[in-house]
This record gives sequence, C-alpha cells and structure tokens, in this order.
Amino acid sequence: MKKKIGIVGATGYTGVELLRLLVNHPGVEITYVTSREHAGSRVDAMFPNLRGYIDLAFSAPSNEQLSECDLVFFATPNGVAMKSAQVLLDAGVKVIDLAADFRIKDIGVWEKWYGMQHASPQLVEEAVYGLPELNRAQVSGARLVANPGCYPTAVTLGLLPLVENGLIDLQGIIADTKSGASGAGRKAEVHTLLCEAGDSFKAYAVAGHRHQPEIAQTLSKLAGHPINPTFVPHLLPMIRGIHATLYAMLTAEADLQQLYESRYVSEPFVDVLPAGSHPETRSVRGANFCRMAVHRPGNGQRVVVLSVIDNLVKGAAGQAVQNMNLMLGFAEDTALRHPGLLP
Amino acid sequence: MKKKIGIVGATGYTGVELLRLLVNHPGVEITYVTSREHAGSRVDAMFPNLRGYIDLAFSAPSNEQLSECDLVFFATPNGVAMKSAQVLLDAGVKVIDLAADFRIKDIGVWEKWYGMQHASPQLVEEAVYGLPELNRAQVSGARLVANPGCYPTAVTLGLLPLVENGLIDLQGIIADTKSGASGAGRKAEVHTLLCEAGDSFKAYAVAGHRHQPEIAQTLSKLAGHPINPTFVPHLLPMIRGIHATLYAMLTAEADLQQLYESRYVSEPFVDVLPAGSHPETRSVRGANFCRMAVHRPGNGQRVVVLSVIDNLVKGAAGQAVQNMNLMLGFAEDTALRHPGLLP
Amino acid sequence: MKKKIGIVGATGYTGVELLRLLVNHPGVEITYVTSREHAGSRVDAMFPNLRGYIDLAFSAPSNEQLSECDLVFFATPNGVAMKSAQVLLDAGVKVIDLAADFRIKDIGVWEKWYGMQHASPQLVEEAVYGLPELNRAQVSGARLVANPGCYPTAVTLGLLPLVENGLIDLQGIIADTKSGASGAGRKAEVHTLLCEAGDSFKAYAVAGHRHQPEIAQTLSKLAGHPINPTFVPHLLPMIRGIHATLYAMLTAEADLQQLYESRYVSEPFVDVLPAGSHPETRSVRGANFCRMAVHRPGNGQRVVVLSVIDNLVKGAAGQAVQNMNLMLGFAEDTALRHPGLLP
Amino acid sequence: MKKKIGIVGATGYTGVELLRLLVNHPGVEITYVTSREHAGSRVDAMFPNLRGYIDLAFSAPSNEQLSECDLVFFATPNGVAMKSAQVLLDAGVKVIDLAADFRIKDIGVWEKWYGMQHASPQLVEEAVYGLPELNRAQVSGARLVANPGCYPTAVTLGLLPLVENGLIDLQGIIADTKSGASGAGRKAEVHTLLCEAGDSFKAYAVAGHRHQPEIAQTLSKLAGHPINPTFVPHLLPMIRGIHATLYAMLTAEADLQQLYESRYVSEPFVDVLPAGSHPETRSVRGANFCRMAVHRPGNGQRVVVLSVIDNLVKGAAGQAVQNMNLMLGFAEDTALRHPGLLP
Repeated sequence: MKKKIGIVGATGYTGVELLRLLVNHPGVEITYVTSREHAGSRVDAMFPNLRGYIDLAFSAPSNEQLSECDLVFFATPNGVAMKSAQVLLDAGVKVIDLAADFRIKDIGVWEKWYGMQHASPQLVEEAVYGLPELNRAQVSGARLVANPGCYPTAVTLGLLPLVENGLIDLQGIIADTKSGASGAGRKAEVHTLLCEAGDSFKAYAVAGHRHQPEIAQTLSKLAGHPINPTFVPHLLPMIRGIHATLYAMLTAEADLQQLYESRYVSEPFVDVLPAGSHPETRSVRGANFCRMAVHRPGNGQRVVVLSVIDNLVKGAAGQAVQNMNLMLGFAEDTALRHPGLLP
Repeated sequence: MKKKIGIVGATGYTGVELLRLLVNHPGVEITYVTSREHAGSRVDAMFPNLRGYIDLAFSAPSNEQLSECDLVFFATPNGVAMKSAQVLLDAGVKVIDLAADFRIKDIGVWEKWYGMQHASPQLVEEAVYGLPELNRAQVSGARLVANPGCYPTAVTLGLLPLVENGLIDLQGIIADTKSGASGAGRKAEVHTLLCEAGDSFKAYAVAGHRHQPEIAQTLSKLAGHPINPTFVPHLLPMIRGIHATLYAMLTAEADLQQLYESRYVSEPFVDVLPAGSHPETRSVRGANFCRMAVHRPGNGQRVVVLSVIDNLVKGAAGQAVQNMNLMLGFAEDTALRHPGLLP
Repeated sequence: MKKKIGIVGATGYTGVELLRLLVNHPGVEITYVTSREHAGSRVDAMFPNLRGYIDLAFSAPSNEQLSECDLVFFATPNGVAMKSAQVLLDAGVKVIDLAADFRIKDIGVWEKWYGMQHASPQLVEEAVYGLPELNRAQVSGARLVANPGCYPTAVTLGLLPLVENGLIDLQGIIADTKSGASGAGRKAEVHTLLCEAGDSFKAYAVAGHRHQPEIAQTLSKLAGHPINPTFVPHLLPMIRGIHATLYAMLTAEADLQQLYESRYVSEPFVDVLPAGSHPETRSVRGANFCRMAVHRPGNGQRVVVLSVIDNLVKGAAGQAVQNMNLMLGFAEDTALRHPGLLP
Repeated sequence: MKKKIGIVGATGYTGVELLRLLVNHPGVEITYVTSREHAGSRVDAMFPNLRGYIDLAFSAPSNEQLSECDLVFFATPNGVAMKSAQVLLDAGVKVIDLAADFRIKDIGVWEKWYGMQHASPQLVEEAVYGLPELNRAQVSGARLVANPGCYPTAVTLGLLPLVENGLIDLQGIIADTKSGASGAGRKAEVHTLLCEAGDSFKAYAVAGHRHQPEIAQTLSKLAGHPINPTFVPHLLPMIRGIHATLYAMLTAEADLQQLYESRYVSEPFVDVLPAGSHPETRSVRGANFCRMAVHRPGNGQRVVVLSVIDNLVKGAAGQAVQNMNLMLGFAEDTALRHPGLLP
C-alpha cells in the first residue's frame, strides 16, 4: 500500500517542486496539500505543469487531517513547522521540515537569527540534519528531519572532504555563493521582480546571512572546534541554481582529486568532475545532484572548490525526497533518477 | 531661466525613466518629485543609477507646491492625474499624464475599461493625444497632453501610412504585440517575478485589453469610420521593449517601402528600415525611436509590419519628454539624442 | 531484450534531448551515438548532465554499425538522413528523421525550400509524417518516420479541430509564432550569441520560412484543397519553448471549447486548458505536452488559438520518442511521463 | 576644428560601444572605421542602433589613412595594435589600445600569457596604463595608452585604498569576479550562445586567467613588492556588467568607509556607496561609473569590497573615451555624462 504524504504550504517553489518529484514516485500517494490562502482551488490551476498528474485541491491546514498521513513535508516559511511538529510526531507521523526551524541546535543562536521564540525547543535535539552524505543512518531512523538550507548543502558538500581530513586552515574559509532567484520564494516583492533582479547581479546580506551559522555548525562539529567561515551570497539573474566558490588554504599535502573522488564514490547524488573542470549550474537543472570540481591554482596552497546544485532540488525538495526515501525505506534514488535539463 | 518640472509618482519605471532623461536636459530643472509612500527618502537611494545627477528627496504630493512648476508629469496609476489636473491647469501649469486618464474621448468607453468614474470629464475634450507624429501642432499648443500608451504607440505608428492612405481592409487588422515586463510597472506582484515571467512566454488579456479601444479610437478617426482591430498582447521574458507584428490585407496597390519612407522622412524619432529588414527591440533600448519594417510575403495582398519601441522611452517617458519639448518650445529632440544601447 | 538504438548527430540540442529522454527508457538501450567531429570523446564530457547515465563515446558514423540497431534517430542537419535511410531500411532498421528530409511530399517544393537535390525521392512517399495525433496508426506500422518540425507541431495541433470541422475561412489563417533560441541549434553563429539574441526580440524570415510549406501541406490535405497560411516566426530571448498565436475567422458556429476538448480528450500529450486560459511555455518546459487554449474575443467571428510546446520535446526529441514507442510497440508515453519544470 | 578619430576593429562589442559614446561627443569626428571582413558595408547596417548617427562604411585597415587621424582606438583582438602602433605614433597620431598589447610591462610575462611574440617591445615601457584614477597626469601627456582590462578595472579600483594605505595582508587577497557574456566578445563560438551561457552560471579559467598578472602588476607596484592575488572569474547569464567581490584581511585599524570616500571624493567616475550598501551591476549599465561598497562583516578583520562596472564602458570603451578626453584636452567627462539604464 502506498504511503500517504501531506504537504503543508504547497504554493511556494519548494512545494510545487515536491509535487513535481512525488507525482511519479511509485511508493507514495499525495493525499493532502494545504494552503490557507488558496483552500478550495485546484493545485493544477496554480501549477499547470501538473495538469494530469494531480487531482487535488488545496485544503486549509488541519493537524487532524495531517495526522492521517505517514509523512508530512513542511514547505512553509520559517516558524510554521515548529508549531505543528509535536502533534504530528505524537500521532506517529514522520516530519520533514524544509524550512529552518530544526536546523540549528543552539536555540539561542536560532532565535537570534530567525527573530522569534522557538515553539518546540524540545524537538531540536532530536531532529536529524538531513544531509544524507553526512547523516545517512540517522536520517533513516529519524522521525523528524531538518532539511538543510540550499546554500549550506552546496557549501558543506564542497568542504566536507577538506574538513573531515583536517587539510585546511579553518580560520580563513571563504564561501562566495551565488543563487538563482527562486531561492527567494514565490512572494510578491519588488526586489525579485523580473525588472529588478533580471539582467543584473549583486551581493546581499554581506553583514550576515542565516545560512552562515548553519554552515558553521556543521563544519565546527566536524572539526571539533568553532569555525566561522566568511559567507557572502549573491543573487543571479536566473531562476534555478546555486554555485558556491569555496576558498581555503591547505595546511597539509594531499591528492585533492583523489580525496574528493573517494569521499563521494558511493554517493548517488554527488558527482566529482574530472580535474580541471568547471561545473555549470545547468548540468543539475531540475536534478538532485551536487556536482563539484576541486582546483589548486598554480599548484599553490590555495584550494578552490566549485560546487553546484539546483537550489530547489538538491537544495530543497529533491533532498527532502531523498530523506523521505530513507525514512520510509524506499531506494534512496526513487523518483530522483532523471538527469538535468540541458540546455 | 530653466523651466521648473514636477513629477508625480516618480517611484515607478516611467518615473525613474523621466528622471534619467531629464537630468541632462539643459532647459529644465526638476524641482519637485513626489511619492506618498517614500516621502522624505532620497531619490537616488531608490535609484542608485541617479547618484550624482539629482539631489532631491521624494515629497508627499501637494497641489500647492506642484502649482509652482511650469510643467508637471503624472507618472502615476490610472485615476490619479484626473483628480489634480484641473487645479494645476487653473494655476497655469502644463500637464502631461503618462497614464490613461485623458486618452479616450468617449467617457463611457473610458469608464467601462478603467472601472472607475472619470473625475474630470470636462478636460477630456481639451486633452491632446500626445503622438507628435500625428498631432505635433496641437501638442505644441496644448496645456494638457495625454501621453499615449506603449502598445498604441508601436501599433499606431506602424499602421498610420496604410490607414491614412486607405490601402487596407479595415475589418481584418490584427496586432500581435509583445512587451517586456517593465510595462507591468514596479509593483510587488507574483506574476511579474523573475521566477514567473522569466524564461517563459505567454499571451494575456486575449479577451480584451485597455489599449485596444485606444488604438481603435485613433485608427477610426483617421479612417472616418469605426475600426475594431484584433489586439493580442504577450509578455516577453525581458525588461524593455515592445514588438508589434501587424497584419492587414491590401485593397489597393502601392509601393509600401516608398510610402513608409516618405510618411516618416521628416520624423526625428521614426526610422523606416530598408526593405527586407527585421527590427530588433534592442536597437531602441533606452532610446526614443520607433523602428519599423514593412513586408509583403510572396508579394501577395498580405502586408506585415514590424514595429519596435522601448516601452519606457518612446512608449512612455521619452515620448513624454518629446511632448514637453514641444509644449515648452525646446528643440523636439532635446535630451533625447542618444542611440540605443546595443548590445 | 532491450531494443538497440542509434543516434546519428547526437551533439546538437535534439540529440542531447533524445539522450536525456532515452537513458531512463526501460525498453531500449542506446548502443551507438555518432559525431564525426567528436568521435572518440565521451558523450558525458560534452553533456555533463548525462554523467552517470550513459557510458559511451561518440563514434564516427558507419552504416554498417548503424545497421545493427533496431531503430536509428537522425538528429542531423537537413540532407543527412536522406543519404543513409535506404541502406538502413534495407537492413531492417527503422528510421526516424528529426530533420526535414522526409516531411514534404512534393519533391520540387522540398528542393526549392531546402536548396539541394533530394537523395532518396523514392522514400518520400513511404515516409509517415510523425504527428501521432493525426497519423497514429500509420506511425505504428511505419519503417520510416518524418518527425514534424517544431513550429508545425504547435501550429498544426492548434488548428486541427478548426480545419477538420470546416469551421474557418481557410484563406485568412495567420500563425504568429515565437520560439526560444534552441530551435536554431547548437552551432557557432553570431546571431544566436547570448549578447545578440538575449534581452531582445525580433521577427525573422518574414519573406518565407521552411516550416510554412510543411504546415500548408498538412492543412491542405485535411481541407482537401490548397491552404497558404501567413506564417511569421520570431526569436524569443530564452532557451526552450514555442508559443503559436493562431488567428482565423469563423465561418460557422460552434462551441469551440467543447470542440477542442473532445478532439483531444484521448490524446496523452495534448492538453486543452479551461476557457479563458493563457498557456505559458514554462508549463511544458522539458515535457512532451502541447498545451492550448481557444479564445473568441468579444464573442465575434475572430478565433484566437494559443498553443505552446517545448520545441526540443514535443517539437523534436519527445515527439520522436513518442513515435519510437509506437513503432516499437511500447506504451506511447514510456519515458515521457514527467511533468514540465516550473519554475 | 573637431579632432579626427579612427577606430580599428569596430565590429566587436567594444567597437560599437566606442561608436555609441563618440557619436555625441562635441569635439571629435569619427572619420575612419575599419573592418577587414566587412569593408564596404555600412556601419549602421551591422549596428542599427546607430542609424542616423553615423554615415560611414567600414574600410579595410590602412596605416596611411589611419595616419590622418588625431587619435586611433584599437578595438581589436590581442596582437593587432602592437603591429601598427609605432607607425601611427611616428606619424604623430595618438593611440589607445583597448586590447592587452601594452598592459604588461614584463615582456616575458606578456608573451607567456598571450602566447605570441611581442611585435613592439620598445613601446611597452612608454605606454601608460590608462586607469585615470591612478595615472591621470601620465595619461594626459601620453602618446600611447594601454586601456586596462575589464576585470582589472573593477578589481584594482576596489582594492586601491587598502593597498595604498598598507592596511591588508597582501598574501591572502581573493578576487571572486563575475562578468556578463559581452566580455567574451562578438565571436561565433558555441560556449557563448544564448543556449549555452544563458540561464546558467559557472566559473572558468580557475587555473589561470590573463587578467591576473595585470592586476598583480598594478597592486605590486603600489605595494612595492610582489603580490599574487587569487583570481577566479565567472560567467554571468546576462550581457553587460562585472561584479568583483574582493576579500582581504585587515592588518591595521581604519575607518574603511571614510577611507574609501576620501580616496575617491574627487573622482568623477568612482562612486562609493553608503555603508551597508550592495551595488548592483544595473546601476552602471551603459554608464562609465565604478560603484563600490566596503564591508567588514561582524566588525572583524575580514574586509569585503563589492565593486561593479559595465565591462563595455568603464571596463573598456568608456574608460577609453575618458582617456581620450585627457589626451586631447577635453573635459574628462565629455560624452560620458549619462546615468545608467535602470531598469
């Protein structure tokens, strides 16, 4: 029997992406899709690409109805999942939050960056940070998964082999990251209009961005002491794709190409390109891959890692489905086997 | 002494475009720029391209202060200019409305399409439709100018020579038009987000669009009897530019290339391309030109006219400055002499 | 046992799109992929989105090796397939040509538009025009399929119900069509550079385009006498997608919405949108659908049909796979079941 | 009497941009525009934005005719100017090379990076590096100016105040730079097609790029000893604009905002934004400005400078006109006074 899946907040870009991926999943059935604002209107009226694939209308969110699902995704703004997670978990429902409510273990840090009081601090410790390449076993056994942020996914996967092996100066890490506009969500705002964000490029949040503490938490745990990388995000004049350009100074010798290839050889969704490559975001458009290349210009101590993902797939909905597959016992790549859309 | 210019509603795209064009106009001084929402904040904080060119903050609109200007532009939503125009005209201020309040002579038609009651019906008759290529003399003597819509400018200029000379079947005219997203304005709306309007293309308002009666009015007046062209607008995944593809059936023989060239030979801002050309919107990016080409495929009776403008320049702010130049006695092309930005 | 598939000329956009669709097809195996220029280099070095999906290098084309396939796709420039098709057919290989070699039944017309002598005139009669919605049975039994052009697919499907039912004036049909730049192929040319075709819009080939006679042939056959529609293509500043805006005059009364819905009710890949809709090209991005809407502005005699496809999928590789499925006895939608990529 | 200007190689993007800027320059007359390939065809047939502004055809390049100019721009590929410069200088003609022939003082370094033997090594020492903000007086008196590269302009201006004042660790400088596709020129190549470079993002030349030694040369000279910054360029899916994100570690305390503002207070084309700003490339689209902001995240030792230019204007043709103005005694901002095109 198919597993019953609910999606809370399915009118945003991570929501429609979850729907796009799940409609062809052989083991699940989307039974409940919520939107307070659009309750009653058909899902495929808002997202015509799904015509013929889903025969549901949005419902107003109800914990009672969500409790009948086997697993519920929260594709909601920050601060929503934390209010319902406990009820659902108590009802035996597994939960994946695509927002940030359960990503940061230090409640004080979370509250500072997200500007609100945490409604379920008791669940933060239990929540598994859903980066399968780091926490596969824990994800498989989890009731509650905090799906990683888009930037943190690209940055962390790009730096993992260096940090795990203690090869770099941990104080000088720089993550210069660039994201397509879909990372800002499907919200009526001036700064992400085509006429504002199109045909232009800028940095933003140089003073501080919420994904910095998330990256710092993962790397610090790996390193065993606090790391505080410099993190500068930029907005690309395109829809999908993140490119992280990562800089560090080597403190020990290593065959970096070999190191990266062996770290990820068994990973279904991490692809280390041949030496000298420059991954393009379009190579992962619509696909769940993280593609990366590692460089050492002039064979010096500076290492430059290039890491790309589709922010809506491996950076959000695809990774969430990957986590769901682990949590529900499906093959990890179920419904995630299509290549990127190029051109 | 420089003429004093006021701009009401300068936070939209036609507003900033007026500012861009006027800051280098040798005969005018921008003295008053209004925005209710942003009163008190500097103009160049919102539009950094103007840093060094304008040293003003937005003011809350006040008819008293506007009355000290020689000429006031309304770069506002529909329905705003009609509430203030009489007061300003009474104070001896000339007025150019870039919105639609004074474009349609038939008040009933206007009220039907714009969904509100007209606040100054007494001014509609006086208002001159500011298409200099059609009404140059009247514009020069006008107190109140209705600046044409963007689509109507491209369509009307493209059809003028055919209609003026009675060469086509007036019942079968089709205007298939395409516009960049800046035509929708600088408003926080979902459907013009980069992620919605980018990398895609669609028609809209096929059932009816406000620019259709405006085009019909001008063509009908020229022809001497009612014309009701089919008008279908589309949204282009880019910022600036309108392309009108115009279809008609010839009812008489003519050398169309020669006809178009002689109609526009003295026009500073209409450029008829050589036979066989296909005008690109980028050739007029940022410039006040309408470029066009006339085709007769297979030398049959079907005529196809291609007409391009920058919707924010010849389709809005540039044409408004052209009208201002006429109204204030400047050379018609003052501040409008720069070529398009290509590439 | 899986069917063996060869692809000739797989370095272009229709080639890589065939690969993207076929790598997940459960019934076929890609055994032979040719490129004279890139022989010896890995397919996934050129198209990194396929890393992990295909373990082949390009081969120089050889009829001998192609003859071991069950079916061969020609994703080549015009004039290539006609030189090899006979040899392959004689060897029992089925052939689908994605270029134009076998689309036009009148050899003289073909030679005029394509500027070369036809190398296999004897095959033109046999070749089935691969529009399943029109010729499903013939495709199923065919040895040689001429895959339709991209514009003709969007235009023909949009007009079929009107022409089949004799509802319109056949002399006044206009097809105003717009295509993304991938329709021009993956060729080193100035006019399709990002800096030339990006952020701009233009018509092209108004004097005459090769897809006009292809459309005319299909419609004329349906109508029973010659039809010569006006066809004007335009270049969109985006990669994928065709939008056809089709104009005709009704000569008889009909419920057009009902007519379109019943014509296509059983078609897996044609989707008639609800009355009043405006299909977006992005709703079919990467998917094999044709989505359309039919309008009758002001309830007059003018009918306006809006029809969108992804030019590389339903307009090329997807339709070719659909035809292959029919020819090889697979379910028609095998490997074509994914929704469009939105946003 | 107007100065006579020649442009060699005017069919590329820097060439047409020179034309766009110079046609409205009151003190110069474009008398000679060369293109070997397009000799005889009108300039405005290739660049329709210039219709009405220039009445010349391309000529085959001839040193004799160029010698009649007062000043000649080389908007050519690398290696062209060095073959003609001596002849022109001997004839009393001033020369500005927009390519790289005279940028690098160390002939050996130049020959290594540019892969050819230098044809005029005797001129390299004399050539002035045309960054007016650094070498204004020398440019004013120069016969031969090496116009800086696009990336080096954005990077050098962004780092100048820090390096001049000895405030940073010179060994750890990182320049993460992003450029629109027009930087690659108007050449028929696959990798800059709309379908290849559009809607995607990637780094390139991480192993080494020709602009790195140019940046290193300027910074090293300023610092008094060798600096070897890490330089990683990326390709943006848009036409115009460079964004440099510059990272360094402070080694001394300073009020960075005040430092930058006073360094550039008298510069007509460098604009330091208020503290906390994020410059957008569109704010300089078509304009000769470099806009920048300086950040110090968390008030730590890390300094992050954001610097934007239009690569075709301040990064090429605009800076060349600025240099020409200095060399010919015009006001430095002549023909360069227009604001950026926003939106």
